[in-house]
Amino acid sequence: MSVHDRLKALGISPQPPPAPAGAFKPFVRTAQLLFLSGHIARRDGSPWKGRLGADMTTTQGNEAARAVAIDLIGTLQAGTGDVERVRRIVKLLVLVNSAPDYTEQHLVANGASELLREIFGDDGAHARSAIGVAQLPFGSCVEIELIAEIA
Amino acid sequence: MSVHDRLKALGISPQPPPAPAGAFKPFVRTAQLLFLSGHIARRDGSPWKGRLGADMTTTQGNEAARAVAIDLIGTLQAGTGDVERVRRIVKLLVLVNSAPDYTEQHLVANGASELLREIFGDDGAHARSAIGVAQLPFGSCVEIELIAEIA
Amino acid sequence: MSVHDRLKALGISPQPPPAPAGAFKPFVRTAQLLFLSGHIARRDGSPWKGRLGADMTTTQGNEAARAVAIDLIGTLQAGTGDVERVRRIVKLLVLVNSAPDYTEQHLVANGASELLREIFGDDGAHARSAIGVAQLPFGSCVEIELIAEIA
Repeated sequence: MSVHDRLKALGISPQPPPAPAGAFKPFVRTAQLLFLSGHIARRDGSPWKGRLGADMTTTQGNEAARAVAIDLIGTLQAGTGDVERVRRIVKLLVLVNSAPDYTEQHLVANGASELLREIFGDDGAHARSAIGVAQLPFGSCVEIELIAEIA
Repeated sequence: MSVHDRLKALGISPQPPPAPAGAFKPFVRTAQLLFLSGHIARRDGSPWKGRLGADMTTTQGNEAARAVAIDLIGTLQAGTGDVERVRRIVKLLVLVNSAPDYTEQHLVANGASELLREIFGDDGAHARSAIGVAQLPFGSCVEIELIAEIA
Repeated sequence: MSVHDRLKALGISPQPPPAPAGAFKPFVRTAQLLFLSGHIARRDGSPWKGRLGADMTTTQGNEAARAVAIDLIGTLQAGTGDVERVRRIVKLLVLVNSAPDYTEQHLVANGASELLREIFGDDGAHARSAIGVAQLPFGSCVEIELIAEIA
């Protein structure tokens, strides 16, 4: 199955990235690498606010990370012209808005990692860091940045 | 206008990086990429201490991020021999020392992003992540790491 | 002295990375770069829990960072087939589980940086960012991700 087929099977249609909330770009390419800016979780087009361990559960955080991954795929589409040109998802940095005692950032991050595996197959398997941060822009619950290799 | 002209017009003269506060280097080049270490904000040569949402305003944080960008340009100069050889600012990671309820990290980060745009023009437009962290070395208010593409 | 000699002299025998705690891989290579996932500190095979400035001293954190560096070398061995093929340690991102007033993240990070210098010599000198985060997976005290250049 192609990436397009897998997206279709899951009912996902990648959208172009929204205008950045600042003086930066959603992606920059250098040689074979495409660097994607940190994407915050959104719900119904607005920042998905919350803090894990305070007012959100791990399951909800996992869903938010999956939503970010869908947005990242939209940006990969915009950055390549065709997501089939993504040769490899290289690395994710997953930032989880965390209460001081919340220690399941890796389970939140899996929401993004597992979707990327489903969509890109073996080429979607990536290196990753998941960390708990004090706060994120707009009070978002999750932010993810991504590096991909492009054909 | 050249990068040198724009620096001159803004009255900025890039300085060589100070000795790192640890067992690392201010920059490392690999192939066409120059990786710059996290640079903490400094004022009058000392760490610029503070926490956004506690004892600093967003405007002050934005100024601190701009000051870091000036230091980063000094390190780009040291790492390339001539800042004109910077082909592209690829990515910033902007770390903002944040109180638990402070959510304007993106506005702080703009202080660095906008200066890089002014100095490098379209080549200064970069991917970026801005996050709120619990604390930074020396109690600094802002730390920024940068990846650039070199000619 | 070769990297193997230096490891032997220090009594370090790199181990293969443990299975990742999530849907990701311990390393991904793209062109000349090897991206290593964030490695959490472990002690006796379990997560090394703690928070700097709360229940751990800087000296203990420094030891934990050194332990992570040993695990990273194991992953470099797995990712290259032979650590002698590491041409350069390019960059570390050192995440320190920090109480709000703890500001010695750079001294913790030196535990990893100094070991890499000892093992890889001048090729071990790297760019670095050290930051204080709110929390880490499993309550770990330190997490480090690494980028290396491979021959």
